[in-house]
Amino acid sequence: MYRPQNLRLPGPTFVPQAVLQASARPMINHRGPEFAALLAAVTRALQDFLQTRNDVLLLTASGTGGLEAAIVNVLSAGDKVLAFNNGAFGERWAAMAKAYGLDVRRVDVPLGRAIEPELVRDELRKEGPNGARAVLLTHNETSVGVLNPLREIAPIIRESGKLFLVDSVSGAGAVELDIDGWGIDVCVTASQKAWGAPPGLSMVTVGERAWKATERATLPRYYFDFQKAKASLEKGATPWTPAVTVVIALQEALRLMSEEGLEGIIQRHVDLARATRRGVQALGLGLFSDENYASPTVTAVRSPARVDSRNLARVLRDEYDVVVAGGQGKLEGQIFRLGHMGFVTISDITSMLGALELALRRFNVTAEPGTAITAALRAFAAEPVVAGARRG
Amino acid sequence: MYRPQNLRLPGPTFVPQAVLQASARPMINHRGPEFAALLAAVTRALQDFLQTRNDVLLLTASGTGGLEAAIVNVLSAGDKVLAFNNGAFGERWAAMAKAYGLDVRRVDVPLGRAIEPELVRDELRKEGPNGARAVLLTHNETSVGVLNPLREIAPIIRESGKLFLVDSVSGAGAVELDIDGWGIDVCVTASQKAWGAPPGLSMVTVGERAWKATERATLPRYYFDFQKAKASLEKGATPWTPAVTVVIALQEALRLMSEEGLEGIIQRHVDLARATRRGVQALGLGLFSDENYASPTVTAVRSPARVDSRNLARVLRDEYDVVVAGGQGKLEGQIFRLGHMGFVTISDITSMLGALELALRRFNVTAEPGTAITAALRAFAAEPVVAGARRG
Repeated sequence: MYRPQNLRLPGPTFVPQAVLQASARPMINHRGPEFAALLAAVTRALQDFLQTRNDVLLLTASGTGGLEAAIVNVLSAGDKVLAFNNGAFGERWAAMAKAYGLDVRRVDVPLGRAIEPELVRDELRKEGPNGARAVLLTHNETSVGVLNPLREIAPIIRESGKLFLVDSVSGAGAVELDIDGWGIDVCVTASQKAWGAPPGLSMVTVGERAWKATERATLPRYYFDFQKAKASLEKGATPWTPAVTVVIALQEALRLMSEEGLEGIIQRHVDLARATRRGVQALGLGLFSDENYASPTVTAVRSPARVDSRNLARVLRDEYDVVVAGGQGKLEGQIFRLGHMGFVTISDITSMLGALELALRRFNVTAEPGTAITAALRAFAAEPVVAGARRG
Repeated sequence: MYRPQNLRLPGPTFVPQAVLQASARPMINHRGPEFAALLAAVTRALQDFLQTRNDVLLLTASGTGGLEAAIVNVLSAGDKVLAFNNGAFGERWAAMAKAYGLDVRRVDVPLGRAIEPELVRDELRKEGPNGARAVLLTHNETSVGVLNPLREIAPIIRESGKLFLVDSVSGAGAVELDIDGWGIDVCVTASQKAWGAPPGLSMVTVGERAWKATERATLPRYYFDFQKAKASLEKGATPWTPAVTVVIALQEALRLMSEEGLEGIIQRHVDLARATRRGVQALGLGLFSDENYASPTVTAVRSPARVDSRNLARVLRDEYDVVVAGGQGKLEGQIFRLGHMGFVTISDITSMLGALELALRRFNVTAEPGTAITAALRAFAAEPVVAGARRG
């Protein structure tokens, strides 16, 4: 029997039919006026959603490519960088910086915990004026479902005068992110996350301080060169052939997002994340991470005792067509991660939770049918918690 | 009135409806069994078309990204490389090598001429055993419509023992290319060229000598790291989120290509290229490049005296919906380039030539109506010239 999948990954996320259809439009010239108009429109819409007047560059690459671009364009070999890390993606970014010969001081936070403002303040104090030239910070750590409190951290980094590079690959477009207000110099996101488009594009904002930094940065670069991208953008193009169909899809996704509006999108993610957490907790499952910093886009759940989360994910996929993510690295088998990022409704969440109830029975973890769904609906219907004020 | 475009660019090329539709399938998990099966099937089909048992890596990037990957994975800063150059893409690759701190000796051939075996032999002789570690060579130089005679050049480079890196971005899948037989260590192509899929993927073959070279190569790399790509490929995945919809599209395009078969595809390109050349010549226009090495995938044509080719291209596009490419760099305004790469039929060529006749009238270049089309059809119907034996 044909059954559509409920793609509950933290990326690639569900792509609406209208967006997929848009991506199937006939191919166009990437150096012609149609593409120039498309690029201008997408760039403008992204600036709105990212709350920035900075340049937004479209790179044909995954988010990881965008993170590499952030490093190679503003830094030089031997530069000291301070990399805050509370999960696999923070780790990856730090590893990348090391691969490029940067002098990386990594500050690790236990998995499941957030990077808190006090820590950032203390670590920056240790650096002093001859210390790190840049701070690398993951906004939404997808591997553990933690949203680091960037609103509180940003002014501390800004005050230090250091370059402020942010990985918001899985946050931007779904959670509060005030690039200009918070003074973020380079911010990286990707098409297949909250934006609900297919993968293939990384969108990178570049501010004035970052542009200045590109002038003295000597790390080798060509494909990811920001200056080349900007020079082309001014002529309505990209320096190299872009993923045209993904750009077209992204335009349609942004149009759908505009109908809802950024505020509504942010609130919906908060509400769906709360519903998800209450649902899994009602089944007796534990949240992996500090709920004070629970990510609105992905929830990490501890697998029940003696249940390998890979097996649970397999049953969910093969028997119930619900696709969830497992744990990464040390957390493999220990946790599973539920994505509620992008074009997601409460129906997607209840459908997922119903499947989870049934799948758990296969591992002798039973609950009264409807337990998770009821809890989720109750949480969803409750007085909405205002987005961005989760710590109150 | 709705009029479909006749996309006669040397990339992105026309994407068949079936391929576009495939790319609009629902999003899938890039770490699940469906994607693993897809990746394995695409890799196998690419190995067949590229006549290689080498690894084929899919990088989410344009062809330029693939060319960068070729450099950073097998070379180290200061390494000498010999870069043969007969156009904008050869120039770009050499510039990229320089940007990565390589010691590049560029051998320039006048625009419109091929890189001939004798030249390669002479230049390699100058290098000697302590000379260049690698040779960079563009197979099909898109900017001038020249196919360099790789069959004759390959044994010379192979004999030298140097790493043999080939840009066949706009050649592979349409012209003769025997990666294993010719001993090519790294060969780069891209989805939006002869493969008829949307842009977003670069496909790179990596042979044994190249794998050995990755072990001592010290250029910094992360996103484009071949070893990471191979480790993931062995687990049926890519290290970073791939352009999933483009991979699905590429699978469908490869299926369509299999129906025709590589030999048929190669012959068709030779025949369509010949028809194109005869068509434009019948209008009194000159070919820009040495016809002995005419590219089967793109033809560069001199714009008539006092006609800026940009204006001609604009009339073709705006009035006849035929999209052609202009000249690059020094050739801007001087030439226009007609793409006949990928899923192209003789109807696409005659339709383009009819439009060209009409458009030229706007610039007071007139011919008896039907002149170009007649010449093209005559050339197409004539005893076919066997592909790969164009010099006889």
